[in-house]
Amino acid sequence: MPPPLMVRFHGGEAGPWRVLRQRVLSGAPLPEARRLAVQEAAAPSPPGPIAWTLAGSTGNLRYTERIEADSLAARQEGLARPQAVHAALIPIRKNEAWWSLAQDERRAVLEAQSRHIAIGMDYLPAVARRLHHSRELGEPFDFLTWFEYAPEHEPAFDEMLGRLRAQREWDFVEREVEIRLVRELG
Amino acid sequence: MPPPLMVRFHGGEAGPWRVLRQRVLSGAPLPEARRLAVQEAAAPSPPGPIAWTLAGSTGNLRYTERIEADSLAARQEGLARPQAVHAALIPIRKNEAWWSLAQDERRAVLEAQSRHIAIGMDYLPAVARRLHHSRELGEPFDFLTWFEYAPEHEPAFDEMLGRLRAQREWDFVEREVEIRLVRELG
Repeated sequence: MPPPLMVRFHGGEAGPWRVLRQRVLSGAPLPEARRLAVQEAAAPSPPGPIAWTLAGSTGNLRYTERIEADSLAARQEGLARPQAVHAALIPIRKNEAWWSLAQDERRAVLEAQSRHIAIGMDYLPAVARRLHHSRELGEPFDFLTWFEYAPEHEPAFDEMLGRLRAQREWDFVEREVEIRLVRELG
Repeated sequence: MPPPLMVRFHGGEAGPWRVLRQRVLSGAPLPEARRLAVQEAAAPSPPGPIAWTLAGSTGNLRYTERIEADSLAARQEGLARPQAVHAALIPIRKNEAWWSLAQDERRAVLEAQSRHIAIGMDYLPAVARRLHHSRELGEPFDFLTWFEYAPEHEPAFDEMLGRLRAQREWDFVEREVEIRLVRELG
């Protein structure tokens, strides 16, 4: 488990990722942006005008149990695979009812009722994923999840999102935006 | 559950809390400070020289289950009680072994093996407490716990700390500093 990594996603005119489309699932949209830059830790900010910045930090496992963590580790692949030129950034904010639940209640909704971890497992190793926590940074979203996959796995990725969004856990989502991207190296 | 509150603890020459003593349990000490100011959210910073600032954010329950949360809520009292003129700030950093554990493993150490929640319950309502998370803010400590109690409950507070520090959970603590304070209104 590496130490927390602060990551800033800058929507604007710069960066290797071109925005294909923004889809608003619930709540307010983000301002329009043509490109996206991912800034890790103390790396320099991208040049040019920035339409929005979202920040989050990687961190320890919040719900995943050991047997699940080992299964995930055995199957998942890292970011920046050469063939994974498609990406999605999905910022989510959950409502007060979610954050007022105790740990056992949130775990029950997330996995016993919604199979969040199990559904994600079905799409490994095709879909690589990194979760960033934003809530305690005073950010407008609670989580920023970043996904990378090869173009031929887009239908599988779409299916995964559809299955997750049909679960009870999503009753607690009050804002969700999906930004689809393609990598275009300058 | 109120939204996360960002709190900055400033050790220096200002603030209503006079430092009685610093005790280093493990790791490096903090620089000497005569007084402490607690800055919540966007409140102004204290005047004068500052020896150190530690920041953390309140947040949702990480380990506490519903039955425990209800027992705590029925017994605990809030901060700023007039008689609770003694306080302690205890910043803690846990080691990489702790942060590499899965959620069920950390919960097992914290409660099944170490009775962290149950021990704290024994000292309610005498000791009021607020936990601040710092790890994902890039801070030198992972947690900042703030305690307030009346002078006659200091022996009970000392006993609580002794019991907690004797548990297996504390094998994972790599830095711990304890700052005892007394409130002196200007």
